[in-house]
Amino acid sequence: MAQNIYDQPDFFEGYSGLARSVKGLDGAPEWPAIRAMLPALDGRRIVDLGCGFGWFARWARTQGAASVLGLDLSENMLARARSETTDPAVHYAIADLETLELPPAAFDLAYSSLAFHYVEDFDRLVRAIYGGLVPGAHFVFTIEHPIYMASTRPGWLATEDGRRTWPVDHYAIEGERRTDWLTKRVVKYHRMLGTTLNSLIDAKFAIRHVEEWSPTAEQIAGQTELKEELERPMMVLIAVRR
Amino acid sequence: MAQNIYDQPDFFEGYSGLARSVKGLDGAPEWPAIRAMLPALDGRRIVDLGCGFGWFARWARTQGAASVLGLDLSENMLARARSETTDPAVHYAIADLETLELPPAAFDLAYSSLAFHYVEDFDRLVRAIYGGLVPGAHFVFTIEHPIYMASTRPGWLATEDGRRTWPVDHYAIEGERRTDWLTKRVVKYHRMLGTTLNSLIDAKFAIRHVEEWSPTAEQIAGQTELKEELERPMMVLIAVRR
Repeated sequence: MAQNIYDQPDFFEGYSGLARSVKGLDGAPEWPAIRAMLPALDGRRIVDLGCGFGWFARWARTQGAASVLGLDLSENMLARARSETTDPAVHYAIADLETLELPPAAFDLAYSSLAFHYVEDFDRLVRAIYGGLVPGAHFVFTIEHPIYMASTRPGWLATEDGRRTWPVDHYAIEGERRTDWLTKRVVKYHRMLGTTLNSLIDAKFAIRHVEEWSPTAEQIAGQTELKEELERPMMVLIAVRR
Repeated sequence: MAQNIYDQPDFFEGYSGLARSVKGLDGAPEWPAIRAMLPALDGRRIVDLGCGFGWFARWARTQGAASVLGLDLSENMLARARSETTDPAVHYAIADLETLELPPAAFDLAYSSLAFHYVEDFDRLVRAIYGGLVPGAHFVFTIEHPIYMASTRPGWLATEDGRRTWPVDHYAIEGERRTDWLTKRVVKYHRMLGTTLNSLIDAKFAIRHVEEWSPTAEQIAGQTELKEELERPMMVLIAVRR
């Protein structure tokens, strides 16, 4: 079973205070780029893998989605998600992405935001998602970028000549990474970007778009701390089609 | 027109002394991985973009290729390539990849090794290659990895705690990079990996395999200096299909 950091009190409290938890989708600077990669949602049956507080589920319904199933490992997050909607077409359930099973050909869109880098067996997960989608269905997800995750000691480096740069090492050595983020010893799984793409291709998905997210000039003007995201990608956004 | 470093005497002399120039394909540690990504060559009409000394062209003919057209910007390299074969099914011609034109649907395989990072307009090049291939044709190429190229000062960094790491900065700022390699001020063009893939997808190629090359344990055992290639990828190998 995947590590359930979200139900640790210190992590949950920290996570609940992030802009993306307080403001929802508009609190995530990558949201406009994700939205541009989504198909029209009208009439679609959607599964959201790692749905958290349910922001995407509720938004998808405003866009005409027929139904949304939100899955998450965290009881705490689902409790809050359930408390925030009475929509009968939105359902939430506990699920571990390491052992995910979906009903066959039940969904038109699979969506996931920043959850899969916590999953060790990505090949298995991708096959499970493929089986749950109808032919022609879309699958759009975001993960931490491997450039951001690869190093055994990720974090900005000041060099002797006064530059600021990001360390990349151990890139080809895939597997567990432990970092401190909101709580101690968060377990993530580093995979090369090529590995992620090849898993999708091997499962018969067609790659539609790969975006190593960086902020627009307009976003930087409004929020200057985003400028460092030009230096190294923190996230990658991927759209594929069954 | 692309910078023609290969016809600068110091560069040409340095390049001619590299293992991959002296030993040919087997002098390039990434060659076994490239070979595994190639289709069967029997009967194929091949274009090699940036063919250099013609090692791949001659090898492809030993694998049953029907014909090989080798294109390169360098008169020096083509002169040596021509001197090393009398095969009537191998042809060489001067071409600038910035302005490449190919006869329509004339080839079954396009191949290129470590040439496209010298090309500024990759979108244009990809469309030209697409037009030169028959439906179902393969396109396999290698480029310097953007992790290797992105920084304004690429090169190993020693950190205060004794680690060795590779700097990544300016990753989202695409365009010209000038570095010293065999000669001064070699001009290369940095593109994010996502940009390269999206150019291929937009041109209607299907992505088949993306390999951020790293050496095998066996290769490292035989050539210990390859170990550092586990830390950050120097090259990416991409296979697509029209």
